Formats: sequence, structure tokens, C-alpha cells
Amino acid sequence: MEKGLMLVVSGPAGSGKGTVNGRLSKMDGYAFSVSATTRAPRPGEVDGVNYHFISREEFEERIARGDMLEHTSYCGNYYGTPLKEALEVLEEGKNLILEIEVEGAMNVKRLYPEAVLIMLLPPTFAVQEWRLRHRGTETEEVIQRRLARTREELELLGEYDYIVYNRPDCAEDCVEDIRAIVRAERCSLRRHPNAKKAYFEQD
Amino acid sequence: MEKGLMLVVSGPAGSGKGTVNGRLSKMDGYAFSVSATTRAPRPGEVDGVNYHFISREEFEERIARGDMLEHTSYCGNYYGTPLKEALEVLEEGKNLILEIEVEGAMNVKRLYPEAVLIMLLPPTFAVQEWRLRHRGTETEEVIQRRLARTREELELLGEYDYIVYNRPDCAEDCVEDIRAIVRAERCSLRRHPNAKKAYFEQD
Repeated sequence: MEKGLMLVVSGPAGSGKGTVNGRLSKMDGYAFSVSATTRAPRPGEVDGVNYHFISREEFEERIARGDMLEHTSYCGNYYGTPLKEALEVLEEGKNLILEIEVEGAMNVKRLYPEAVLIMLLPPTFAVQEWRLRHRGTETEEVIQRRLARTREELELLGEYDYIVYNRPDCAEDCVEDIRAIVRAERCSLRRHPNAKKAYFEQD
Repeated sequence: MEKGLMLVVSGPAGSGKGTVNGRLSKMDGYAFSVSATTRAPRPGEVDGVNYHFISREEFEERIARGDMLEHTSYCGNYYGTPLKEALEVLEEGKNLILEIEVEGAMNVKRLYPEAVLIMLLPPTFAVQEWRLRHRGTETEEVIQRRLARTREELELLGEYDYIVYNRPDCAEDCVEDIRAIVRAERCSLRRHPNAKKAYFEQD
């Protein structure tokens, strides 16, 4: 079976990445990466579904041996993307979606260079600003911080492979763009380094 | 309007490129490149449809000023892909399909680096051989020459961007692969070199 692709999907606040990734991960052949954490499970949370719940010692050991694709620490607990579990999903032939921030994406690229890095963006900064204000869930201070953060995030845009623009009410187009990216990447020559040899040798 | 992509589709004898390109060029937003030639039109042939019929002097002038993406000479006449006409099709927003051999493809890449180079291949050499024999239109000598030629052609495979495998009775999959490649290429970061600047400046 052909291995799945690791898809890193990043996007600033208001880019609609939650909606797009949510729809994509429900499609055949796609899975959403389950993070690992050291925090205790809350009532109803299932190990391996909501999170991989692991001990602090195990988390730190896995960081040390390069088995966390990326990680961060929040309120005294670690959160991260475990490499081993990710590779298992890829071996099942599923494309794995990692919704992570730009700094984490750089780590993933370093540890797993075959990853495909996709930046989801509103059509313009003005649209992003409008969306953040329009959903009305954040204070002006938070909105300002998120907009400022976007400028930082886009400093690393050049490290990404693709930009997918999320036009208003067009989340479905983004899903189709990402599916096309996966299909095209499977045909890309860099994923067939032994194509010539294989062509003449296979029966 | 967004400019179309120049798609170079090559493939050895028996790869099915005629079928695939024929279907693709009938789709919305695609056009098949019309070659230029110095030979006289045959009865019923229409200038600009079957060929661009031009004089030997004009053809040689166009070669000299780099206005032939690639060309060859056959039975005392020139045949080639005119750049100006190609650019006009792209400006109309259509993706232009150039069905040309590997040497011509290298020329196109040199003169128009944004071109996307796609190699169409049967799944294996054994399948290619079977197809050539099975269609029964060529002599054994011609079949042997075409198979030997395939080895030469694939020497340049590393210069291509994508491989599309044409499995038996799956021409439609190849058309979908190429459409996915076009959609993905439109999202590729190298086609959005000023994305960051544009993001913050556009209204």
C-alpha cells in the first residue's frame, strides 16, 4: 500500500483552518493528528482519540530521542505531535493532517522532510481583520495581538510549499485545493527517485 | 484574469499520450498547442487550426529570435511550437498542452522556465512492450526501435516535474492527475513570490 502524506496545515487566526481541516479529516483516506499531552484526561476524554495521554517522563524522553515532531508547553503541561503515532497512520496509507503553528512546522520539516507544508490564508489581511472582528468573540486587545502575530507568522511563509487562499464562504474550494495538492504531490518526481530503474525492472 | 499554465506532456510510444491529451484539451480552460510548419496546407487544412502555416524565411527568423519554443525538421520542412501564439493562449487564461518529445521539452524549459513538465508512462516497460505489440500497427523492427528510444527518452526523466502513470484503461485517471497538478501548481509558493507583500497591501 502506498504510504500517506504528512500535511502540515498552518494559518493565522481567522484563516478558517479549523473548518477546512475538520472537513478534510472526515474524507476518505485522511486522518487528523492526535496530539500527546502530559495533562490529565478530563471526564469523557478518551486516550488515543482526544489526546495520547502520557507521563511527563515519557514526554521528555520522547523529546530527547527526536520522537516529538514538535511540542510546546502551556500551563505547566506539554503538548506535542508524536512521531511514532504519525508514522503508523501514514503506513496505513492515510494522509495525516497536522494543524500546527509556523515554528512547529519548521520542526516537522526538519525531522520529516517529506512533509508538505501548506499555509491557509484569507485573501487579504483586510479580510482577516474583518473576520476576527466580525466573529465578535475576542476583545480588541486580543484581536490586535493576533493581527500582530500574523506578521510574525508570515515571515516564515517562504519555507512553505503551498498557499491556499480561503475566500469568504469557500472552505470547500480549500478542501479541493488540498486534495489536488495531495494528488499532484504523489506524481511529483521527487517522490519517485527510482522511477527510471523501477520502470525497466518491474514485471 | 489568471494566466494559464504551459503544460509539456511527453511520453514514449504506447504511453497513451494522444488519448490523454485529446481528452484534456477538450476540457474547459484547456487548449492544445497548434504547431507552426513550413509545409503547404493540404486540402481541408485550416491555418491556425491544424497548423500555423508560415514561410521558411519567417520560420528561420523566429528560430533566430527565440520565438520557437522548440522545433524539428522532417522531409525538408520545419515543424515547431511558436512562442508568441502560446503566450496569447496563456494570456486568455487557458492551460496550454504541448505534446512534444523530451529534447523539445528541454528547450521549452530553457525558454519558458514556468512550464510544467509531465512525463506520461505506462506502469512498466513490460506493459509498454505489450501495448505496442498488441495494437499490431507496427513491424517488429519499428517496435524494437521505439523500445530502444524509450531508454534514451527516460535519460532525461530527472528534468521533469511530474510522472503520471497510465494504467490499462485508466486514461481518465491521468486526465484527473494532470488537472490536480494544474490546481496544485497554482497554489505552489514559487508561483506566488510576492504573496507576503500582496497580503498586507491589498484591500
